[in-house]
Amino acid sequence: MAEAGVDGYFGVRRENTRYLTGFALGDGEEKVAGNSGWFLVTPDEVVLLADSRYAEQAAAECPDARIADVYHDLPARWPEIAAGRRRVAAEAGFIAQATWARLVVAAPSVELVPVEGWVEADRAVKEPEEIERIAAACAVADAALEALMPQIRPGVTEAELALALEWAMRTSGAEALAFDVAVLAGPRAALPHGSPGARRVAAGQVLLFDFGAQVAGYRSDMTRTLFVGEPAARDLELYWLVAAAQEAALDALADAAARGASPSGRAIDGIARAVIEDAGHGPPFGHGLGHGIGLATHEEPTLGRRASDEPLPTPTVFSVEPGIYLPGVTGVRIEDLVAFDPSIGRCERLTRFPREVTVVGAEA
Amino acid sequence: MAEAGVDGYFGVRRENTRYLTGFALGDGEEKVAGNSGWFLVTPDEVVLLADSRYAEQAAAECPDARIADVYHDLPARWPEIAAGRRRVAAEAGFIAQATWARLVVAAPSVELVPVEGWVEADRAVKEPEEIERIAAACAVADAALEALMPQIRPGVTEAELALALEWAMRTSGAEALAFDVAVLAGPRAALPHGSPGARRVAAGQVLLFDFGAQVAGYRSDMTRTLFVGEPAARDLELYWLVAAAQEAALDALADAAARGASPSGRAIDGIARAVIEDAGHGPPFGHGLGHGIGLATHEEPTLGRRASDEPLPTPTVFSVEPGIYLPGVTGVRIEDLVAFDPSIGRCERLTRFPREVTVVGAEA
Repeated sequence: MAEAGVDGYFGVRRENTRYLTGFALGDGEEKVAGNSGWFLVTPDEVVLLADSRYAEQAAAECPDARIADVYHDLPARWPEIAAGRRRVAAEAGFIAQATWARLVVAAPSVELVPVEGWVEADRAVKEPEEIERIAAACAVADAALEALMPQIRPGVTEAELALALEWAMRTSGAEALAFDVAVLAGPRAALPHGSPGARRVAAGQVLLFDFGAQVAGYRSDMTRTLFVGEPAARDLELYWLVAAAQEAALDALADAAARGASPSGRAIDGIARAVIEDAGHGPPFGHGLGHGIGLATHEEPTLGRRASDEPLPTPTVFSVEPGIYLPGVTGVRIEDLVAFDPSIGRCERLTRFPREVTVVGAEA
Repeated sequence: MAEAGVDGYFGVRRENTRYLTGFALGDGEEKVAGNSGWFLVTPDEVVLLADSRYAEQAAAECPDARIADVYHDLPARWPEIAAGRRRVAAEAGFIAQATWARLVVAAPSVELVPVEGWVEADRAVKEPEEIERIAAACAVADAALEALMPQIRPGVTEAELALALEWAMRTSGAEALAFDVAVLAGPRAALPHGSPGARRVAAGQVLLFDFGAQVAGYRSDMTRTLFVGEPAARDLELYWLVAAAQEAALDALADAAARGASPSGRAIDGIARAVIEDAGHGPPFGHGLGHGIGLATHEEPTLGRRASDEPLPTPTVFSVEPGIYLPGVTGVRIEDLVAFDPSIGRCERLTRFPREVTVVGAEA
């Protein structure tokens, strides 16, 4: 903060609250929490906003913070909360324009300096304990899909499988999901983020699972595209291409780790993308190759066409998830999390579920 | 829009997207969706932002909208999206300060007019179909708590009950939860929004459930405080006081409905609050008496000390949920949803679970 000439950091993003103060709000709690969980960090204190509903939790989780009981009246309280501060860095990417304007009016002597990505840059670099938690979340997800396998057969619906998979995670170590489970059958696999519905699994089609668990606040994220009954030749071809694209990216990362080097997120994306483009298989996937993960499912660093040319921050954890989608026809994606730390030569898949062609629900 | 002198409305709030365009993102999808689901409504078209991951869903759910494939590059695309507009009302309470600033720079000829509450005011007034969906969500929640009763006994943990209650809702008509289930035993009931944990249910204590279901996008919200084994005299006294406070508010609402009148949210809050304050029972509850509910769990109108003095908008649906909390000791809250429409004399509890003192887990 001294470097940037500010004497405070005002944050509202829930993951940043948890990272800096320890105050943890469940995903389902965020929308009803109002200002609770917002915080001001200064050289001499941490102020945590928590209305009466959250006062006990805040005192327990943040024993050293000053708890300010603010209930939908932040502008009126802001002069007192920010008293003595001159320039406060504030999370411009997350504070609403209207709130920002009200705070400026409420305390004209406190200059709000718009900043973005400060805490996010810190969060991208992972401590060993953080990587352990992500690995634990990966293990919960791996085991849940393994446990689900006997239930996958023609006739079962996407929604039934999604609920069963969620249940398996949440009764075997996950405190919550990382995000809503996606289960997409056949042509619906072309919707990279579709919601599971009443569609029934059918033989001869693909079945795509995209899901993750949450352990001690840290998340996992994995995708597997399985084959129901006899795989269609077209689906197999796409699968091998996607697997080859992922392998090319992982090989490049492993090479870099062995050399103690960190490539850019753009370079790694380009390596995987070229495999798919060179095969001339329709338009390349529209999303990025991968994303960092931790307290949020999507965080820094980004692997993509428009990602940074700078070396990836390390140690870090990110997904590698190429995909090919033929709208209305079929889709294939394979996604693994990777722990990457060239300082110790580490490039390790945290997702352990097999990547081989997996056939489920075949007739006995 | 014509009245306010604008020729467009730019929105980002997910519930408003669903309300105005039909494009529905699951709660767990919101954080990974980026700009997808943001929209511009103009007199001649609706533009819906959806990157490649959501393109098929957007086309299916919003057949009349123009779909703009925007992936984390909204400022670059904004001049084209807003082409021909001069003054666009924009959701200042939800658009981040940094985004707002970038859009202004990207298209200086398009004036962004900060507005708040436009769509929310429309959403507060409910169509019959909307009230039916909320009532259906209430029925799912009622039945789930009823089904859970045999599992409530000393020794079971809050987290186990929360998961069982969630499972009961999601396998019996709820497409999702309205919010994370709260199950709080004994002294933890003093945390009005605490998360369920490893604490075990014990005889002689209260057990508070705060939960809701989601049906066709619409939500329910209810709280019951049950007694495990022989009720403590202190807990019973608090319970009767909270029940009397709720009854006073419901009576006043029923009277108003019979007269065809709509009271203010502040007046109704005051009626319930006075019952608790007059009994001299510790500090009054720190939260409001209630909140509107619909596509969001918390929406307009508000019933509270700082709520509007204007008549409640009608027809509407809101919660009535007084509570008393003794930190570290115990807590009691009772919450029902009410459909309120004085034009037809309607003041109807949609939550049907009994409000009487309910004893669970007694020794056989």
